Amino acid sequence: MRATVMFGAGDVRVENVPDASLVEPTDAVVRVTRACICGSDLWPYKSMERSETGRVMGHEAIGVVEAAGADVRNVKVGDFVVMPFAWSDGTCDFCREGLHTSCVHGGFFGNEQVAGAQAEAVRVPLADGTLFVLPVGKDDALTASLLTLSDVMGTGHHAALTARVAPGKTVAVVGDGAVGLCGVIAARRLGAEQIIILGRHADRIALAREFGATDVVSERGDAAVERVRELTGGFGVHSVLECVGLEQSMLTAVGIARPGGAVGRVGVPQDETMPASQPAFYNNVTVSGGPAPVRAYIEELLPDVLEGRIEPGRVFDRVVGLDGVPDGYRAMDEREALKVMVEP
Amino acid sequence: MRATVMFGAGDVRVENVPDASLVEPTDAVVRVTRACICGSDLWPYKSMERSETGRVMGHEAIGVVEAAGADVRNVKVGDFVVMPFAWSDGTCDFCREGLHTSCVHGGFFGNEQVAGAQAEAVRVPLADGTLFVLPVGKDDALTASLLTLSDVMGTGHHAALTARVAPGKTVAVVGDGAVGLCGVIAARRLGAEQIIILGRHADRIALAREFGATDVVSERGDAAVERVRELTGGFGVHSVLECVGLEQSMLTAVGIARPGGAVGRVGVPQDETMPASQPAFYNNVTVSGGPAPVRAYIEELLPDVLEGRIEPGRVFDRVVGLDGVPDGYRAMDEREALKVMVEP
Repeated sequence: MRATVMFGAGDVRVENVPDASLVEPTDAVVRVTRACICGSDLWPYKSMERSETGRVMGHEAIGVVEAAGADVRNVKVGDFVVMPFAWSDGTCDFCREGLHTSCVHGGFFGNEQVAGAQAEAVRVPLADGTLFVLPVGKDDALTASLLTLSDVMGTGHHAALTARVAPGKTVAVVGDGAVGLCGVIAARRLGAEQIIILGRHADRIALAREFGATDVVSERGDAAVERVRELTGGFGVHSVLECVGLEQSMLTAVGIARPGGAVGRVGVPQDETMPASQPAFYNNVTVSGGPAPVRAYIEELLPDVLEGRIEPGRVFDRVVGLDGVPDGYRAMDEREALKVMVEP
Repeated sequence: MRATVMFGAGDVRVENVPDASLVEPTDAVVRVTRACICGSDLWPYKSMERSETGRVMGHEAIGVVEAAGADVRNVKVGDFVVMPFAWSDGTCDFCREGLHTSCVHGGFFGNEQVAGAQAEAVRVPLADGTLFVLPVGKDDALTASLLTLSDVMGTGHHAALTARVAPGKTVAVVGDGAVGLCGVIAARRLGAEQIIILGRHADRIALAREFGATDVVSERGDAAVERVRELTGGFGVHSVLECVGLEQSMLTAVGIARPGGAVGRVGVPQDETMPASQPAFYNNVTVSGGPAPVRAYIEELLPDVLEGRIEPGRVFDRVVGLDGVPDGYRAMDEREALKVMVEP
């Protein structure tokens, strides 16, 4: 079958690879209907060390179950499913607590161990715990929004939850990428009164406003901190959704948090240390977040998608076939595209 | 009057200074019955830059109100009071939310601006919001435990709350100083099932066990992390109380937190950056805490002190007069004394 393989920084190719197939009796094989390129795929795109064998990329997909192992019970051939970016057994202590991304038997798609979903098909370990069977058919107009339940919408929701967004709270979203925009949706959905988006891309900001952002801050650094404080009576916001992962974005996030507030970070941190330890401490700012247990959130978010109350699928601004994936990486890396959908 | 003045690292003297007196109509003057030396006083004791005028030290006290300004309503001359380490108006948004250490009109005792309480008397700004009037007399046998409500007991409680200690949870306390020991008391009081103290001073460990610690880990660094995981089924604890403030103690704290767990830090951080940003992220470990709003906690903790259910005053293992304060600093710095009470 054909799949997207990254061989090093900037080197993404579509190659013929062995067909996805059942390995364990708990596996399923999913024929990918839609996959996409993630902002987090851009980190290896910038920095991956050269590899002879490469890495089959992609961790977000919806598709149709093509084969199910002998021990698979909850999923059957023909089911239309969401594949969350992490696979999980659904039964361990952490899964039961709703933290599927720490499943003791789980892992992540799109690395050297488990191949990714920017491909014609994907092997899904622990299919019973991992896959979520959708109650709609695969040609549904909701495809794009359903696809976001595999990562970005659930991740934006996680940022909002860990930043303790609640009715009446003031919120800031650092980063206007797909996750940040989904964070705006999540914050509004959870009842935030004021939602400030920090970003400077006109088209993304326009979408953020449609999603519910009430204010825009296009400054950066200290000027951004000052502007957010001006917008919030001098003290900053209750909740900050950190959707970037850089030192500067964390500095800003802590700087705009109100004393006693919280930062929910979902941008994959690129540094070993976190800045602003002392300001966070002196202001009793909580720093929370991590890889979103999106599997836990699908049930809650799905009705809002199905009934059109939220439209996270609008973050996709380009659709490509597998052949177009390498250029899709380039376009996202150069901020020419916001988020690229892949139709294998 | 006589007061403790620090002129630089290692240079603590008892000097004659102008009497504490009313400056603002919202001030009170408190005659200090008992004060103490705090672990956090040891940071300037190690590093303070030379100062001509010096700094009157001390931020924990109980005492008797000797004078009250014209605008003071809730406190009257003769009242026996606790003086929390931060002064606060009790009426601003943050005080109403219970975060008195971020009071918009407040501040801290024992610095260049507001003199400290290791002295015969202390000026207390915003007396109505700051002071807590005790329902017992000043000669009560509970003096030592009441004194801890000005800082260490409330701080241990804050560590436990921000680390989300709750009935049935597993807890680790990093640091066996007075705050760590009060953290053990707080964790037990909040219903923790297992309380692991990390420390290596035999007498402090013995006291921790009496306060409710169920396990002791005397290893450090990676060995400590491994040992805590062994004691907790391999995953670490739900709640970590970080009561030190060093890079190594934060590394340990994040390392022993269970995925989805929380670190409540009350040790004043000595570094600008926080280590272990990536492990905290990948395990969805929340880092919270800061200066404890002890004023908010007195009401809750006081009945347990008055009725003898908790005995945080046992952390004091030495009592000195004002003349003995310089040697008290030395003794605490050399770990010869756990916590020194001052009887001016």
